[in-house]
Amino acid sequence: MGISKNQIKLVQSLRLKKNRSKQRLFVAEGVKVVQELLASSFELDALYVEERHSTIFAAFPFQDISEQELKKISALKSPNGVLALFRIPKSNTTIEAGLTVALEDVNDPGNLGTIIRLCDWYGVKNLVCSSNTVDCYNEKVVQATMGSLSRVSITYCELDSFLSTFNGPVFCADMEGENVYQTNLPSDGVLVMGNEANGISESIKKTCTRSLTIPRFGAETVTESLNVATATAILLSEFRRKLD
Amino acid sequence: MGISKNQIKLVQSLRLKKNRSKQRLFVAEGVKVVQELLASSFELDALYVEERHSTIFAAFPFQDISEQELKKISALKSPNGVLALFRIPKSNTTIEAGLTVALEDVNDPGNLGTIIRLCDWYGVKNLVCSSNTVDCYNEKVVQATMGSLSRVSITYCELDSFLSTFNGPVFCADMEGENVYQTNLPSDGVLVMGNEANGISESIKKTCTRSLTIPRFGAETVTESLNVATATAILLSEFRRKLD
Repeated sequence: MGISKNQIKLVQSLRLKKNRSKQRLFVAEGVKVVQELLASSFELDALYVEERHSTIFAAFPFQDISEQELKKISALKSPNGVLALFRIPKSNTTIEAGLTVALEDVNDPGNLGTIIRLCDWYGVKNLVCSSNTVDCYNEKVVQATMGSLSRVSITYCELDSFLSTFNGPVFCADMEGENVYQTNLPSDGVLVMGNEANGISESIKKTCTRSLTIPRFGAETVTESLNVATATAILLSEFRRKLD
Repeated sequence: MGISKNQIKLVQSLRLKKNRSKQRLFVAEGVKVVQELLASSFELDALYVEERHSTIFAAFPFQDISEQELKKISALKSPNGVLALFRIPKSNTTIEAGLTVALEDVNDPGNLGTIIRLCDWYGVKNLVCSSNTVDCYNEKVVQATMGSLSRVSITYCELDSFLSTFNGPVFCADMEGENVYQTNLPSDGVLVMGNEANGISESIKKTCTRSLTIPRFGAETVTESLNVATATAILLSEFRRKLD
């Protein structure tokens, strides 16, 4: 039994955000990513497995797929034997106590994926994204997050209204703030990270109560900054090490 | 005056490592990357600039190129108006005092590029790579490093012989080491990071004198680890913050 034309159309259509939002479905590919998501709270909608992987997924209601068929629906250059559709959960707008990360217009799917993994690693429950941040159900983000997508609650909203009503310290990462290594950091608050090319906008900066900088130890002549995912790693590490 | 067939062939041939090694040339693309490299110690071999960018590069001996011609030689999906060839410098095998980073078989060009930027940021002068690590003059690595490629001395060698003759502490990053947040770290030594899928091999582990772990603050049930570039960011931050 092959995959139907309608199923092929559905999977292909999910590369666009508007179709994902309409169908409330997203695509995951590859053995490890699909396994992690199957073990999570995400609800499975459809699972397509090549015969060579059928024992791995024996416990789940999967549909056989041939290598040729998988190529048709896969977004990967080298499809990896399995593709699944999962339901997009309702967005949870409750912000839990503790540290929250907020992103302003992060564009790169790999960066967002890495930041979601970091939130998971460092126990950050909530990630708040400006509405222009890349969609977290974009297939490249899903690949990069591995299973951690299910363990971080992600909300898209108007970031400046969220931040200006937030009742607690709001930190922004920029080039002229306090040296993060010499700063006491609270266990509650929001850490705001900016767009890859432009950093944090002036209107968002106005909503921040403090600003943090990762000092450079190399040559001072250089204008360049750290990648946003790398900077998030270092700042989250600093927030958490102080709790240790 | 257009670009000649021989020039087109040369640039295209440089996508392969063996040709880069033979010609001692590598390719850089995009305004920002090329500007950073022009301002560095790298020696320019050829510079192709579309007319719209000719004022930016007016101070350099460039050759006009049309959008169509650039498309032929560019490795980018959307070529960005400029492409340059630079000479590959002789590899410097002297390891300076201070912290050195060593990589075992890191495969992903983006990861290597990010790690080179991090070395630059944190003042790490030497990066030592196993011979199976992705080539630092790979075009994707060059794009990801921005100008920092010129400020870090990168050596490819047999990593286990290098480490077993290294006279100082050798730290490996793994899942069962000392909690890095609770460990005193020296200002000299080598930090070894492993392959994306397999981590550090047993033979390299034997050459390490200590092992370091970034503790997880989220759910403990998860098997996943941090991405190698992210883990390098956090560990270098820990080595450096203690000097601050």
